[in-house]
Amino acid sequence: MTVSPGATLARLREQRPLVHQITNYVVMNETANATLALGALPVMAHAREEVEEMVALAGALVINIGTLSPPWVGAMLDAGLAANAKGIPVVVDPVGAGATTYRTDTAKRLLDIVDVTVLRGNAGEIATLVGVEAEVRGVESIGAVGDPAELAREAARALGVVASVTGPVDHVSDGATVLSVANGHELLATVTGTGCMSTAITGCFLAANGNALEAAAEALAAFGVAGEDAAKDAKGPGTFHAALYDALYNLDPATLDERARIA
Amino acid sequence: MTVSPGATLARLREQRPLVHQITNYVVMNETANATLALGALPVMAHAREEVEEMVALAGALVINIGTLSPPWVGAMLDAGLAANAKGIPVVVDPVGAGATTYRTDTAKRLLDIVDVTVLRGNAGEIATLVGVEAEVRGVESIGAVGDPAELAREAARALGVVASVTGPVDHVSDGATVLSVANGHELLATVTGTGCMSTAITGCFLAANGNALEAAAEALAAFGVAGEDAAKDAKGPGTFHAALYDALYNLDPATLDERARIA
Amino acid sequence: MTVSPGATLARLREQRPLVHQITNYVVMNETANATLALGALPVMAHAREEVEEMVALAGALVINIGTLSPPWVGAMLDAGLAANAKGIPVVVDPVGAGATTYRTDTAKRLLDIVDVTVLRGNAGEIATLVGVEAEVRGVESIGAVGDPAELAREAARALGVVASVTGPVDHVSDGATVLSVANGHELLATVTGTGCMSTAITGCFLAANGNALEAAAEALAAFGVAGEDAAKDAKGPGTFHAALYDALYNLDPATLDERARIA
Repeated sequence: MTVSPGATLARLREQRPLVHQITNYVVMNETANATLALGALPVMAHAREEVEEMVALAGALVINIGTLSPPWVGAMLDAGLAANAKGIPVVVDPVGAGATTYRTDTAKRLLDIVDVTVLRGNAGEIATLVGVEAEVRGVESIGAVGDPAELAREAARALGVVASVTGPVDHVSDGATVLSVANGHELLATVTGTGCMSTAITGCFLAANGNALEAAAEALAAFGVAGEDAAKDAKGPGTFHAALYDALYNLDPATLDERARIA
Repeated sequence: MTVSPGATLARLREQRPLVHQITNYVVMNETANATLALGALPVMAHAREEVEEMVALAGALVINIGTLSPPWVGAMLDAGLAANAKGIPVVVDPVGAGATTYRTDTAKRLLDIVDVTVLRGNAGEIATLVGVEAEVRGVESIGAVGDPAELAREAARALGVVASVTGPVDHVSDGATVLSVANGHELLATVTGTGCMSTAITGCFLAANGNALEAAAEALAAFGVAGEDAAKDAKGPGTFHAALYDALYNLDPATLDERARIA
Repeated sequence: MTVSPGATLARLREQRPLVHQITNYVVMNETANATLALGALPVMAHAREEVEEMVALAGALVINIGTLSPPWVGAMLDAGLAANAKGIPVVVDPVGAGATTYRTDTAKRLLDIVDVTVLRGNAGEIATLVGVEAEVRGVESIGAVGDPAELAREAARALGVVASVTGPVDHVSDGATVLSVANGHELLATVTGTGCMSTAITGCFLAANGNALEAAAEALAAFGVAGEDAAKDAKGPGTFHAALYDALYNLDPATLDERARIA
């Protein structure tokens, strides 16, 4: 395995893949801007009338359940199945799974019906989906859920995905290997949607690296390094948020591998 | 009465209450970020399939009618009634009441069916809801509507709420007492959704202070002080907007009471 | 013809017209803030229950198909016809026309049923709508589509609109005259929704100048000059984005005509 976020980022900027996102109302602008700043092309489309056609043009599909309603769930399933049929990788972000039955059930339905490549969530959300007791306050994971490396490995095995469990240190597993990613900054937790951005960026990296375990870890390292850069002159969440797009745009593939703390 | 925005803010940051928001598409990211920067946890959920379950986890419910459609109105009513059944405070922002019949009628329906704790709007919107002639241009209140202190008192009495009427000086009343709040900055009017943010922050303060009159005034003072801080180095609406989240995050409970201009 | 973005901007700030926008979820906050920073009043409303009443209050209607679904298409048609009946100008942004059949067909339906004043899109979208082969990757126009000045003229003639084709240099035509606008900055392409913002600003200028060819060119010049100003201290897409609202707010009508590169 040759984990190289720098090489994947360079390839992504060369290819400019389209990343189709069916995501929540809260972060749509933010994940689109993160995708664009990184160097890929975002497109948001959620109508059943067009999702199958749109996803066929894409290098990856991002499904995020942060603000659900039945028509959107239908479109997520349609798009997911269409992506599967075309061999396009699918990343799912189970926002708030564990907080309400509707979110938990929708996340499980997506995992049952769609062949999900990467499942990216916080520890509480992922624990809920593998049947471990967890406290999720709205969309935030509260308290410990045991060893996150083991959680990632267990989720990967039980759900048949690459599990990407983010937290102070992130853990990514395909059920055999577990990679930890120790980049990032605490200001990321002060801006809404940074988890969703990391999912979108996972989609970007999946479009440029066919090895899903590598791509998922590379994405978190790249996003974490951008967070570190953005924190340098930030005076709080607002200036940090603006600087985060600058940092994604200015990420240097040549130095990214040295700065990535993937183990 | 002991109005102390600093004490309430300190308690809020300690408790980190979940604030469930059913709000408009335009400002969802902004109110979530304001909530998070202040120190509470936002969650957006609008499906009838989950609003009752979600609101049961929350310290307050925020309903904002800025971009309506029938399914959302249904969810607002469901969530409002569920909040009432659990004793969870409800703040309503009647965005654009007076501009169209649909908005005016929806605001009135919410006030009729749900036990609303605080009604937070501009003078034109509140005047419309108490039957006073007012000019509302889209979602902006244009022109004078008489004495805003009297409007707040009258609205509180007629509608059975704490009325929170914002403007150059804000007025909050429970029908007996009227508190005025003279914090803020004119740049707040140059950014979309600052009224909606003040409503979300009212929800945060309601979650941390059971006295609705106090909480509503404290919220406006805290938000106004943050606006004053954000204006210091702003070069216009964009840098002001980013600085506003920094200022909410950096609000100092120890000095907030001195800076609050509540009378 | 007296193209004067400065004079139109001064008039707009005096009149503060309401600009009714039925636009996509991704950019709603951004186009509202651009409208407000420029000096007009934005309102977003998409329910069939209220769009006819809302548009009757407006100086212009902006329709943007960036995130479609059937109820929204119905509201766009209702609002467009209501605007026509009142003589209110309508600008349409066919986001992603050419990418999916649903988007192409919806754009064509709007053009067939509603009397559209200005059609504002990128070269790939406009080419699709006049039947020229074009590559649209999601919502981005990829590759050349021939002479953009000719495309603008041809679209204006074929579709009976003022065609506003944006790109490195913009071209605006009523079918006879073609105006080119050479303002702007490459950072505009790094932020999602700047095309949508230029459409919203076109709506603002249409509300203040009854000559649609002039208004469309003036809007692009004003937005381009703001982009030039915003780029000065920007370190990337995030700080550029914040500075763009500052620049729109600080646009000086007195010097705008000299800076506008309209030919």
